[in-house]
Amino acid sequence: MSGIPRIITFTSDFGLEDPFVGIVKGVILSLNPNVTIVDITHLIPPHDVLQAALTLRSAYRFFPPQTIHLAVVDPGVGSSRKPIVIDSPPYLFVGPDNGIFSFVVGENFSAYLLENPRFFLPKVSKTFHGRDIFAPVSAHLSLGVPPSAMGRKLDGIEKLSLPTPVVQENRIVGQIIAFDRFGNAITNIPEELLEGKENLKIRIGEHIIEGLSNFYGEKEPPAPLAIIGSSGFLEISVNLASAREILRLEKGDEVEIKLP
Amino acid sequence: MSGIPRIITFTSDFGLEDPFVGIVKGVILSLNPNVTIVDITHLIPPHDVLQAALTLRSAYRFFPPQTIHLAVVDPGVGSSRKPIVIDSPPYLFVGPDNGIFSFVVGENFSAYLLENPRFFLPKVSKTFHGRDIFAPVSAHLSLGVPPSAMGRKLDGIEKLSLPTPVVQENRIVGQIIAFDRFGNAITNIPEELLEGKENLKIRIGEHIIEGLSNFYGEKEPPAPLAIIGSSGFLEISVNLASAREILRLEKGDEVEIKLP
Amino acid sequence: MSGIPRIITFTSDFGLEDPFVGIVKGVILSLNPNVTIVDITHLIPPHDVLQAALTLRSAYRFFPPQTIHLAVVDPGVGSSRKPIVIDSPPYLFVGPDNGIFSFVVGENFSAYLLENPRFFLPKVSKTFHGRDIFAPVSAHLSLGVPPSAMGRKLDGIEKLSLPTPVVQENRIVGQIIAFDRFGNAITNIPEELLEGKENLKIRIGEHIIEGLSNFYGEKEPPAPLAIIGSSGFLEISVNLASAREILRLEKGDEVEIKLP
Repeated sequence: MSGIPRIITFTSDFGLEDPFVGIVKGVILSLNPNVTIVDITHLIPPHDVLQAALTLRSAYRFFPPQTIHLAVVDPGVGSSRKPIVIDSPPYLFVGPDNGIFSFVVGENFSAYLLENPRFFLPKVSKTFHGRDIFAPVSAHLSLGVPPSAMGRKLDGIEKLSLPTPVVQENRIVGQIIAFDRFGNAITNIPEELLEGKENLKIRIGEHIIEGLSNFYGEKEPPAPLAIIGSSGFLEISVNLASAREILRLEKGDEVEIKLP
Repeated sequence: MSGIPRIITFTSDFGLEDPFVGIVKGVILSLNPNVTIVDITHLIPPHDVLQAALTLRSAYRFFPPQTIHLAVVDPGVGSSRKPIVIDSPPYLFVGPDNGIFSFVVGENFSAYLLENPRFFLPKVSKTFHGRDIFAPVSAHLSLGVPPSAMGRKLDGIEKLSLPTPVVQENRIVGQIIAFDRFGNAITNIPEELLEGKENLKIRIGEHIIEGLSNFYGEKEPPAPLAIIGSSGFLEISVNLASAREILRLEKGDEVEIKLP
Repeated sequence: MSGIPRIITFTSDFGLEDPFVGIVKGVILSLNPNVTIVDITHLIPPHDVLQAALTLRSAYRFFPPQTIHLAVVDPGVGSSRKPIVIDSPPYLFVGPDNGIFSFVVGENFSAYLLENPRFFLPKVSKTFHGRDIFAPVSAHLSLGVPPSAMGRKLDGIEKLSLPTPVVQENRIVGQIIAFDRFGNAITNIPEELLEGKENLKIRIGEHIIEGLSNFYGEKEPPAPLAIIGSSGFLEISVNLASAREILRLEKGDEVEIKLP
C-alpha cells in the first residue's frame, strides 16, 4: 500500500431520503477512517441492475488506480445470489453477482466469493448486505487485505448483455438505451462505428437529422441534433431542452443511420 | 484527542436544491479542515422532527466513537427552543432541543445549553442557526473543546414518544411508523418480541401473512411478506415492489401478530 | 501552499441521477487525492445560470481562504463561450464565462482563459467540459498551479444583472427573486435598506404584513410574515408552511414596503 489515501466509490439504489447511504459510510469509516468515499449516484431506480451497470460503465475509469468500486443494487439480497469482489486491475469491484459489473471488468479478472465472516459485521441482517457485508469488505480491501482472502475463487461472473447495433453496408440500426437528466437520449451506437463517415443521415421516429453536431447550440430548439456524447456513444439531443420530452422518446426506440 | 480524523454526521430537512448544506460544511471546514463530514440525509420532510429522530435512531451507532452527530430539523429556530449539545458516550449530539435526539441518548448523558457566543459565528441570523450556531459548535467540539464549555448544564432534554406495541398472551398489535424508499413498511414491533416464536400469522388490513421470510425473494410479488428489517423491527414488504403502494399502506396502520 | 488541505466546492445542474458529479470528482481526485470536495448543490434547474449565480452568492464566503469554487451550468458547452478561471482573493472561481460568477467577484479580480491543454484531460469531449476541462483545471489549481498559467488574461467577465429595488421617500418596491425548499420567498431588498426603520408595512399581493418578525414562530400559519433571511435579504414566509404555496407567489412578484 502506498501512502496515497484509497478511494471507495459508491453506487446504489438506496435513494437519498433514508439513512442507508450514511450508514454504509459509517461502517466503512469505522474500519478505515482515512478512506475517501465518493458517491456516484444513489438514485438508480429500485432494483434496476442494468441501469446501475451502465452507470458504472460511464464512471469507473475516471478514478485513480487502486480505487474500489462498491455497487449495491441487490434485489436478490439474502437469497442465493453471490456476494463478490472482482480484481480487475487496476480496480476492485464489490457487490452482488447479478450482472452489475457486466461492462467494467477487463478480459483478465479474478472474482472471489465473499464468504469469510471475519470481514463482515458481527451480525448479518437479512435485508441490508450493503451495510453488513459489502461495506466492511470494501473497508478491509482499502486497508490492503487481498481479495483472495475473502473466499474461494469463482469461475466467472454474471453478465448482462446489451442489444448491439446492426451494421449493414449502407445503414446502422441501433436503439436508445438510456436518458440523462437533461433528456439527452443515449444510444448503443459507439463513436468508432461512425469515425471517418461523412454526410450521415440519422432517423429517429419521423425525424431526419443531417450530420453530427459539434455542440448543442448548433441547432435551434426544438430541432433535434445528433452528437457524440461524453461516454463515446451517439446521443440524440435538443439544445436547451429535453429531447426525451420534445421528441417523445422511450428506451428501445430505434435509431437508424443512413450512410451515403 | 487522538490523531484519528474526527467525523461529523449531518442530518437535516434542508433539501438538496438550496446551498444550505454546503454552507454548513463550509463553516465547519473553515474551523477544522481535517474533519470528515458524512451526510445521513437532508431530505427529512420539512419540520418533521419525528422522522429525523427515527433516522438518527437507525444510523448513529454505525459510526466510530467520538463521532459528532449534527442534526438540524428546527421549526422553532430563533424562538425559545434551546440549542444544545448532548454528551452520551461514545457520541456527541448537536442540534435543537425539540425531541430530535429522543431515541439515541443512553441512560447516562449530559446535556448543555449552547450559549457561549465564543463558539458561534460573529453574527447570528434569525433563521439559520444550522450555519451560525450548530455548525461552528460542532467544529469546535471536533477540535477537542469539551461540551461543558458551551454553556450551563441542563436537567434533561425534550423527548418524543412512539406508540409501543400492545402485547397480549396470543397476540401483539403494533403499527406502521415509517416507510423506506423501496416502499417497505417499518413497524414498531421489535425483533426481540418475536424471538423463538414460530407459526406466526401476521395480519395487515385484509392480508394474512404466514410466518417470517428469510429474504425478499421467498414470495412472489404481489404477495406480501413479513421480515425482520435492518433496524431490528418487523417490516411488511413485497418482493421487487412497493408494499406501500400495492397494499395501500399508511403510517399508523395496524399490524397484528397472532401467536399460536 | 500551506499544509492545509485545499477545498474545491462544486455547484452544477448535473442532477443526482447520472454519474456526472461522481465522474468530475474522480478526475479531480486522480490529480490531487488530498483535496476536499464539497457539494453546494447539483439541482440547479437545467441551464439556469441566474439561479446558479444566486446560489454561489449565498455560499461562497462561508469557505476558507484559498477555496476553489467550481461551478458548471453550461448551456453553451462546446460553443464559443469561454472557459475561465477568476482570481478574486481569497478565492478562485472556475467555470464557463456566462454570468455564473456575476455576484461573487470582488472589485479587483483577474480572469484568465482556460486554453492551455496541458491542464485538460487528454481528450476533450463536445458535451462534458466539466469533466474534461473544469475538473482537471480545478485540481491543478488546488496543487498550486497559478491561474495565470491557464491562458491569456481577459479584459472582463460576463455579468448578469438583477433588478434593483426602487427606493423612494416613503416606500421601497422590490420583488421576489427566488424561493428555497421551505417555500420562503427571497426578495431583492437588502437588510441595509431597512436598518433603523420602524413601523414598516410590507405589502405582497393583497396581504399587508405589519413589521418584521424575529423568528418564524411569531405568527401563526397561515398568516404571512416578513423576516431578514440568512443571506441578508428580506424574505416573506409562513411559519411551518410554504409561503410560496399558501400565498401563491411567483418569481417577479412585487413586494412593497411602506415607510411611516
